[in-house]
Amino acid sequence: MENGNHKEIPEDANEHCPGTQSEDAGKSDACAGCPNQEAYLVVIAERMATVKHKILVLSGKGGVGKSTFSAQLSFALAAMDFQVGLLDIDICGPSIPKMLGLEGQEIHQSNLGWSPVFVDSIGVMSIGFMLPDPDDAVIWRGPRKNGIIKQFLKDVYWGELDFLVVDAPPGTSDEHISIVQFLKETGIDGAIIVTTPQQVSLIDVRKEVSFCKKVGIKVLGVVENMSGLCQPVTDFKYLKQSKNGDQEDVTRWAMEIMKEKAPELLDLVACSEVFDSSAGGAAKMCRDMGVPFLGKVPLDPKLCKAAEEGKSCFSGEECGVSAPALSAIIAKLLKDNTMT
Amino acid sequence: MENGNHKEIPEDANEHCPGTQSEDAGKSDACAGCPNQEAYLVVIAERMATVKHKILVLSGKGGVGKSTFSAQLSFALAAMDFQVGLLDIDICGPSIPKMLGLEGQEIHQSNLGWSPVFVDSIGVMSIGFMLPDPDDAVIWRGPRKNGIIKQFLKDVYWGELDFLVVDAPPGTSDEHISIVQFLKETGIDGAIIVTTPQQVSLIDVRKEVSFCKKVGIKVLGVVENMSGLCQPVTDFKYLKQSKNGDQEDVTRWAMEIMKEKAPELLDLVACSEVFDSSAGGAAKMCRDMGVPFLGKVPLDPKLCKAAEEGKSCFSGEECGVSAPALSAIIAKLLKDNTMT
Repeated sequence: MENGNHKEIPEDANEHCPGTQSEDAGKSDACAGCPNQEAYLVVIAERMATVKHKILVLSGKGGVGKSTFSAQLSFALAAMDFQVGLLDIDICGPSIPKMLGLEGQEIHQSNLGWSPVFVDSIGVMSIGFMLPDPDDAVIWRGPRKNGIIKQFLKDVYWGELDFLVVDAPPGTSDEHISIVQFLKETGIDGAIIVTTPQQVSLIDVRKEVSFCKKVGIKVLGVVENMSGLCQPVTDFKYLKQSKNGDQEDVTRWAMEIMKEKAPELLDLVACSEVFDSSAGGAAKMCRDMGVPFLGKVPLDPKLCKAAEEGKSCFSGEECGVSAPALSAIIAKLLKDNTMT
Repeated sequence: MENGNHKEIPEDANEHCPGTQSEDAGKSDACAGCPNQEAYLVVIAERMATVKHKILVLSGKGGVGKSTFSAQLSFALAAMDFQVGLLDIDICGPSIPKMLGLEGQEIHQSNLGWSPVFVDSIGVMSIGFMLPDPDDAVIWRGPRKNGIIKQFLKDVYWGELDFLVVDAPPGTSDEHISIVQFLKETGIDGAIIVTTPQQVSLIDVRKEVSFCKKVGIKVLGVVENMSGLCQPVTDFKYLKQSKNGDQEDVTRWAMEIMKEKAPELLDLVACSEVFDSSAGGAAKMCRDMGVPFLGKVPLDPKLCKAAEEGKSCFSGEECGVSAPALSAIIAKLLKDNTMT
């Protein structure tokens, strides 16, 4: 492949340096005693010495609800009185500030390092806090992305944490290779992989599982998100379609008919599969690949809204369809991995 | 930022080479006459001389249906008797082979170059055709991804094309910078940006629009996908929720009740907004940012299924909810940009 021979070699590197972006970085004989090598890994190890558990949240495809899951996992752990840090390493599309209700916040510096932004005792770090204008595109190639991720680990004062949740972008490229390279020596508990029931998403989850195996990260489990839409019959809008394709909103009329003629329907929940899962979904894939299946979360418009508003789905009774499913998944995660 | 000073310089480069990954690559005085520089851009220009229109399909967030849109756009153009090429530059998560029903196919080589894989006269190229095992993760940093994208442009024999549709991964990083750098001199018609109505997705679309402005690519328009789920009342599953949270499938009973007591409900379509669009959705964002809005596509389980099965949504009458919306969007795209 082209470009394969061009190395990134720091000016003060040892002889025979394999390059900072090489697969051998930090492993080659030449790395021993290298000032670049040692310095940052030692600093990261010091920072991580006060962090009990490190969990990566991965997905093969984007838009499967990975950041929503990371955010709600953090809210749930914080509600259990754990100290939680949430690190967003999606550099080009950071969603975490919005999902924690922290848009427009800024990072502060102290003599201990960069301070995360706090909400409900969750310390949050994201490049989203560093952009002067939220519309600005972060047009960065890999090395710059790796550089900022390294800074998030070595320059941020996380303090005493029970959990550091790392929300990664989709894929298996720079961000993923780097976070594992930077954290591996300090101990990573493992990765949670989020998917939808669709085949196109599951194909990429298989790649993510392969990635974890190759880099030696335990798969803590797979979460199937958006497993069908479930909503009270009374929450839908009803349309009448005419023969020429026009649609008329007849919701009020339909509700009247139901109340008068068939009130027993009003208490029902209507479900649609949305994404075809006839091939067995994530549960079957987990059996095939020998990784734990953590559970399903239905597509719940109320959960989408909570995420948009940066709120926990566990406070109040709004997310009656999704919150119990998420709670069960998180309880299973903690129990199976004795992380309590 | 760290790593910023390490350049990727080919061995036979001119003096003062800014590095192949630099923003000045190809623009610096030092690039004039450089064998690396000239060679590949000349070859790409020759390959692209037989391609009339080049359209990038972008999204800020993943999972918004970008690849589904790219696939259906290609099917629609082919059905209008255009010659279409579809290039998948999502290197770590290629969905295009699956969405065109081409899983397990391989690329062949001829004396003209690599041959795309064909379906319905659409020539398709994706790294998905080059993986020995579909579960394999492509664990590549930026430079290798850029290298394969360059090869897709300079080594593939596309032949005479009316349209080359390029399906990009989400974000604004290596793949995006590279495709623009490689194709810009040959003329890019512009970019279509796909989004969902959610704020979290729209935030990233704004970044994508900023990216297009910065690199000088015209925004052909924005497509709002998954604009609510619409489905015939009779296609839902109905559940009864008991007080202890158990759910019982009562679909058959509910259908009986409707038929007997309120048959006027059976013809209705039930819609759910799914993603909160109270802030105005993509149409409002387009007005704010001064870019064209191409239209909305409802979340249609039948379209999801067509995508999973690698089929066109335009053949047959299955996708009655989504196909007319997609057709209208594509007609508008061609008309507004006189690409017929």
